[in-house]
Amino acid sequence: MKILYFVTSNKGKYIEAEEKLREIKNIKLEQKRIDYPEIQADTLEEVVEYGIEYLKKKLKKPFILEDAGLFIEHLNGFPGVYSAYVFKTIGCKGILSLLDDMEERNAYFKSVIGFYDPRTNEKKIFKGISKGEISFEMRGTQGFGYDPIFIPEGESRTFGEMETKEKNRYSHRGKSFEKLASFFKKLKIENFKV
Amino acid sequence: MKILYFVTSNKGKYIEAEEKLREIKNIKLEQKRIDYPEIQADTLEEVVEYGIEYLKKKLKKPFILEDAGLFIEHLNGFPGVYSAYVFKTIGCKGILSLLDDMEERNAYFKSVIGFYDPRTNEKKIFKGISKGEISFEMRGTQGFGYDPIFIPEGESRTFGEMETKEKNRYSHRGKSFEKLASFFKKLKIENFKV
Repeated sequence: MKILYFVTSNKGKYIEAEEKLREIKNIKLEQKRIDYPEIQADTLEEVVEYGIEYLKKKLKKPFILEDAGLFIEHLNGFPGVYSAYVFKTIGCKGILSLLDDMEERNAYFKSVIGFYDPRTNEKKIFKGISKGEISFEMRGTQGFGYDPIFIPEGESRTFGEMETKEKNRYSHRGKSFEKLASFFKKLKIENFKV
Repeated sequence: MKILYFVTSNKGKYIEAEEKLREIKNIKLEQKRIDYPEIQADTLEEVVEYGIEYLKKKLKKPFILEDAGLFIEHLNGFPGVYSAYVFKTIGCKGILSLLDDMEERNAYFKSVIGFYDPRTNEKKIFKGISKGEISFEMRGTQGFGYDPIFIPEGESRTFGEMETKEKNRYSHRGKSFEKLASFFKKLKIENFKV
C-alpha cells in the first residue's frame, strides 16, 4: 500500500478526497497537517505551484494540495484567490451587496490540485470548474462558505439547498479529484514508488 | 555613504521614502526591484516578516520593505492585507456598496516597514497608522487607491481632495517612515556596517 499525503488542515476536504480516491487500489490517502505559505497571487495555480515548491523540500513522500475559490464575472473575478478571507470578513451578505440587483450574475467555483512526487520529480496540476450564478438572496442551510448563494448551471436551487451527494455531482472539487483519480488509474502503479 | 535597499517595484513609494530619509547623513536609499512572495495572512506584520525571511538569504546589504492596507471596522478589517487586490477588482465603489448607508464608518490605513541588516542580523518593524472614516461618496481626484473615500480624523475632506504634502501630514506611510528615520538617527552610524 503506497501512501499519498494530502496536505491540508481541513478535515472536510480530506474526507471528500478520500472518498473520491478510495477506488484506487494500492494508494492510501493520509491527511498531513503541515503549514505552507499561501501567496497573494492572481490565480489559484500560482498559489498551488508555490506551495509545491515549498513542500517538495520538506516531504519525502508523494503529496497533493488543493486550493479553491469563487470567481464572479461582474466583479472582475472577486473574491477569487481570496475567497476564504472575504467570506470571513464580509460573507455572503457582502457579495450580495456588491452585486446589488445586477442582472449579470455569472460566477464559477474553481478547484486546483497540485500533485508532486519527490522520487520522480513529477508534478501535475488538475483543475475542476463548476459554472453557475449568484442568487439574489441567501437560500438553504446545507454545505458551507458561499453555498447558500451559488446556483450551479442547469439548477434553480443553490448548493445550500442540496444534499452533499447531490452537490458533489456539480462540484468543482469533485471534478478536480476525479481527474486526479483518472491519472492514478492510468499510472502504472509500479512507477508510483513511495 | 552607506546603501540601504528599499525592495519595491513601486516608484511612488520609493520617492516618498527617499524624501523622508534624505535628512539622514551617510545613508543612501536605493530602489531594489526584486520579487518576493507576499503571503496570504491576517496581518501586514506577517506579510512583512515572511518577506524579510525570504530576502535575507538573497541580499547582502541592509534592506527595507513595506506593506500597507485599509482596515474598515464594520467590515471586520476588510479589505486589510488584500487592499490592493480588492481595489483592482471592486474598487472604491465596491467599498461604498458594502457600507451602504451605514452610519458606523470607522477605518484606518496602516503601513508596516520591515528593516533587516544581514551583517548584524538586526531586524526591526516600524508601524504607522492613520485613523479616519469612509466617506459616503467618492470625492476628489488626487492621490491614488482609496484616497477618494478616506477622510482622516479631524478633517472633513478626503485624501483625494488634498495636495500630497497636506495628505502626508496624516499619512500612515509618512508616520512609519518617520519612525524608521528616528531609528537611524539614534543608531550609531559606525554600527551600521554595509
